[in-house]
Amino acid sequence: MKRPTIIDIAREVGVSKAAVSYALNGRGGVSQETRERILDVAAELGWRASSAARALSSDRAATVGVVLARSPEVLRTEPFFMQVVAGLEKTLSAHGFSLQLALASDTATELETYRRWWAERRVDGVLLTDLRVDDPRPALLRELRVPAVFFGTERPMAGIPVLWVDERDIAASAVGHLAALGHRRIGHVQGPEQLRHTARRERELRCAVAEMPGTELVPAHGDYTEAGGVAAAARLLGAARPPTAIIFDNDVMAVAAVARADELGVRVPGDLSVLAWDDSMLCRVVRPAITAFSHDVGGAAERAALMLLELIETGVADDARMHPRELITRDSTGEAPVR
Amino acid sequence: MKRPTIIDIAREVGVSKAAVSYALNGRGGVSQETRERILDVAAELGWRASSAARALSSDRAATVGVVLARSPEVLRTEPFFMQVVAGLEKTLSAHGFSLQLALASDTATELETYRRWWAERRVDGVLLTDLRVDDPRPALLRELRVPAVFFGTERPMAGIPVLWVDERDIAASAVGHLAALGHRRIGHVQGPEQLRHTARRERELRCAVAEMPGTELVPAHGDYTEAGGVAAAARLLGAARPPTAIIFDNDVMAVAAVARADELGVRVPGDLSVLAWDDSMLCRVVRPAITAFSHDVGGAAERAALMLLELIETGVADDARMHPRELITRDSTGEAPVR
Repeated sequence: MKRPTIIDIAREVGVSKAAVSYALNGRGGVSQETRERILDVAAELGWRASSAARALSSDRAATVGVVLARSPEVLRTEPFFMQVVAGLEKTLSAHGFSLQLALASDTATELETYRRWWAERRVDGVLLTDLRVDDPRPALLRELRVPAVFFGTERPMAGIPVLWVDERDIAASAVGHLAALGHRRIGHVQGPEQLRHTARRERELRCAVAEMPGTELVPAHGDYTEAGGVAAAARLLGAARPPTAIIFDNDVMAVAAVARADELGVRVPGDLSVLAWDDSMLCRVVRPAITAFSHDVGGAAERAALMLLELIETGVADDARMHPRELITRDSTGEAPVR
Repeated sequence: MKRPTIIDIAREVGVSKAAVSYALNGRGGVSQETRERILDVAAELGWRASSAARALSSDRAATVGVVLARSPEVLRTEPFFMQVVAGLEKTLSAHGFSLQLALASDTATELETYRRWWAERRVDGVLLTDLRVDDPRPALLRELRVPAVFFGTERPMAGIPVLWVDERDIAASAVGHLAALGHRRIGHVQGPEQLRHTARRERELRCAVAEMPGTELVPAHGDYTEAGGVAAAARLLGAARPPTAIIFDNDVMAVAAVARADELGVRVPGDLSVLAWDDSMLCRVVRPAITAFSHDVGGAAERAALMLLELIETGVADDARMHPRELITRDSTGEAPVR
């Protein structure tokens, strides 16, 4: 005997399978007394409607899917996705939903995963992160009519609710902090080019710099990895007029640059101030500890999960705005060197 | 129209629902020509058997479950579980299986999750980590007959295949490295008491110390968190005869102690050598960088996933041994101070 079935309950109580089915489904056809005995025995045996049977009858899988679309290397080092997973799971489990996970190293695989999950009714909805340049995912999900919520994107998106983040204030805060310390030429080591928020952050930083007379921005492509961050910093520092401060788009790149400052030929913050867009334990334990924007990723994921559950249940969910990040000032930012 | 159904295919081809069902199930009753047209249209519409229908007919969910049994704080900082998840997913997806995740902050919740998953046929098997003292999980899984594989445990377990790890060699290697640098009194900041490998590591370190005349071990309870690691190190260093080296059971505690060495009143490695049982980016970026055991967690998780798939498919799977860890010597370990 593996899982208890209606047949096991019928045998134990000494009634027909049909009687058990009536009782468990709250329909007539059995006496109150028999119904109670059946429910008692079902509870005793640990019986539950199989999720497969319920999914067929209710067209619900009670499951939400997330595709982790980063390289294994980034997944291993960046705490971001584990915080998203922990936040989602907390809200989903409180509502009787499960979380289905998949990895995808490219967009084609990710699209195929959504098609398969939906065709096979494995999920009732999906949560997406990291809107890309020419992103084909929103169109596919609209076409398939998969309930979907986008996490951390720009304000509006046709037909898909978003938990959006205002990065204008963050950019102004970063540039303001560095300008107040006397920095005029500010480097920006960016995330992957194909992510929309990479371009968006550059744009917001350019606006912030434009509003702060005398400051200028020097961008350099990065990829969120340690090696990519250090290489981009080396390019900026090797230029004829190197920046005196660099803003890194994630914690991993900022920390790698600080840990390898000797190789880069700079002292932090004496020669170079370093600021990270995402705070994490990495930023706290490296020396000097890194000035960074703290961000309740787990709390935001809990909120996104609620939006998605509402969308699945009612067919609509409102956009919402993420709580603003807070600048945590540490030792990696200091007075600009006199040149 | 949401997901394509047999009815959609029948309408498109202009045949009966039964004919479509015959064709899709490879049974007789339709001509070769009709069968081919039906299969073409099914492919065109993106039709797939619903996982719910397949699960009912084959008693398979094509899903493996993992409960993450750590506090949200530890999950956020420790890279271990994301590496496990990435390794599992890689192997599972290659075999058409999905990964179901849940968090559990206590054992009762974890047991309830297994009961629910199994009763509702949400998973075909589970992977467990971190065998505990008086662990009720193996007995429950045997009772429910849930295919289960244990990750990173001691050698044998009745009825449940294990991917076991030999920590004797690691303990000998750690003690040997420190003794060669002149350390005699060695501290051990441990993981949570309720984990079996905490006691096992202490035992193996005691054996290693016993085989190295003149050395002794001083244990202190930790809990894998930053605060717990620093507090345990402070207790060891505040003793009448403090150790000159400390082995930490994970990366997070070792890194926290090194980052807060000033508060602890020691220089690393001048006054205190630090060694971490688990390597990670944290160990590499902190200064001094931390001597640690590197460990291919992702590769081990891939292997455990294969064992679990074999168990689900055939009903049996052999125990296997994890690849040994390798000691990566960095700057946090040095000559013992002369006292």
